[in-house]
Amino acid sequence: MDILKQRIIDSAEVLPGNVLKVDSFLNHQIDVELVSKLGAEWYERFKNEGITKILTIESAGIGIACLTAQYFKVPVVYAKKSRGVTVGNDYHTTKVVSYTHGQVYDVIISKNAISKDDKVLIIDDFLANGSAIKVLIHIAEMGGATVAGAGVAIEKAYLGGGKDIRAMGYRIESLVKIKSINSKTITFDE
Amino acid sequence: MDILKQRIIDSAEVLPGNVLKVDSFLNHQIDVELVSKLGAEWYERFKNEGITKILTIESAGIGIACLTAQYFKVPVVYAKKSRGVTVGNDYHTTKVVSYTHGQVYDVIISKNAISKDDKVLIIDDFLANGSAIKVLIHIAEMGGATVAGAGVAIEKAYLGGGKDIRAMGYRIESLVKIKSINSKTITFDE
Repeated sequence: MDILKQRIIDSAEVLPGNVLKVDSFLNHQIDVELVSKLGAEWYERFKNEGITKILTIESAGIGIACLTAQYFKVPVVYAKKSRGVTVGNDYHTTKVVSYTHGQVYDVIISKNAISKDDKVLIIDDFLANGSAIKVLIHIAEMGGATVAGAGVAIEKAYLGGGKDIRAMGYRIESLVKIKSINSKTITFDE
Repeated sequence: MDILKQRIIDSAEVLPGNVLKVDSFLNHQIDVELVSKLGAEWYERFKNEGITKILTIESAGIGIACLTAQYFKVPVVYAKKSRGVTVGNDYHTTKVVSYTHGQVYDVIISKNAISKDDKVLIIDDFLANGSAIKVLIHIAEMGGATVAGAGVAIEKAYLGGGKDIRAMGYRIESLVKIKSINSKTITFDE
C-alpha cells in the first residue's frame, strides 16, 4: 500500500536492534486520517467475509481497530495484557511473549466478548514473529469464534511469523511487507 | 448525554468496591458507533477552540480518542505507561497512581509529539479521582502546549476529581455524571 510505504520512508526511524519506530504516525501519535485509509483497505479485502467483530490486543492495535471497525459496522474487542492478576472464570486466558520487551504476559478476554457465532477479523500494527497474532487466533478460537483472517499494517517478512501463520491456513493481509532492515536501510518486499 | 446514560443503565455492572464495569461497550469491547457519537458531542462543545491534538493515555482512552479525532481532523497522541524502563532524553516523563490498580506508573510522551504550538483536548473514558487527567494536563504543559480542556465519558462526581480540576481553571466536559453508586444502584447527577 503506497501511502503507508511512503510514510514509512518519510517518517519511520530504525533503532538499534532493527526496531522500526513508527510512533509519529502509527502508534503513540496516530495519524487518524492515514489509519482510517488502512481500515478502508482491509474493508475492501474482507468485506464479503461476514465479519462480526474486530479483535486486537492493547495498546497499539486499539486505535487502528476502532478506525477499521467503522467500515465493517461491528464492535472492537481488545484483549488485555495483565500480569499475575486473578481474573476468575469470566475470562478466557492465555499467554504471550512480547517481541519488543521479552516479557511474558497473560492475555485475557471476557467470555461475553466472543461467541461461537462470531466471525473475527484480527487487526494489529505489526506482524513480527507472529506471537501476538497467534495468541489472538488462539483466544478467539477458545471462545468458539471463527477467524476470518488478520490485517496487519506492517509485516516484518524476514522474521517468518507471517509465513508460519499462513502455513497454519490463516489469511493475513499485510499492507506493507518489509524484506530486510539493515542499519538504516529499509528494503520492501514488493 | 442520554444515549450513554441509557447504555450504562442497560449494560454496566457494579462490582465490589463500586467499580463501574463498562467493558461491554466502552472498554475491552467498544461499541464504535456509540463512541463515535460521544466524539461528535465533544466536537460540538470544543469545535471553536482551535484544537490541534487529541491527548489520551493507554489503553482505554485510545479508541475513544481516535473516534473523536476524526471530527477535529487532528492526530491522536496517547501517553504510554511504563515501569522502570529508561526512555532517555527524547521523552517528557512523569508519574501517576492507577485508581483501579493502586500501582505507580511512569507516564511518558515523546518530545516530538507535543509542542508549544499545540492546543490539546484531553479525552478519557473515566474521571474518578482525576489523577489520569491531571497527569495528562501536566505532561501536555511540560511540552509547552495549551490545554483547551478535557472530555470524559463518565465522571464519578462523588470522588471529587472533576471538582478539583475545574477549580484549577480547566474546562471538563463529562457526558454522564454519576452522583453515587451504592451496592447495585447507580444515581446520576442530572
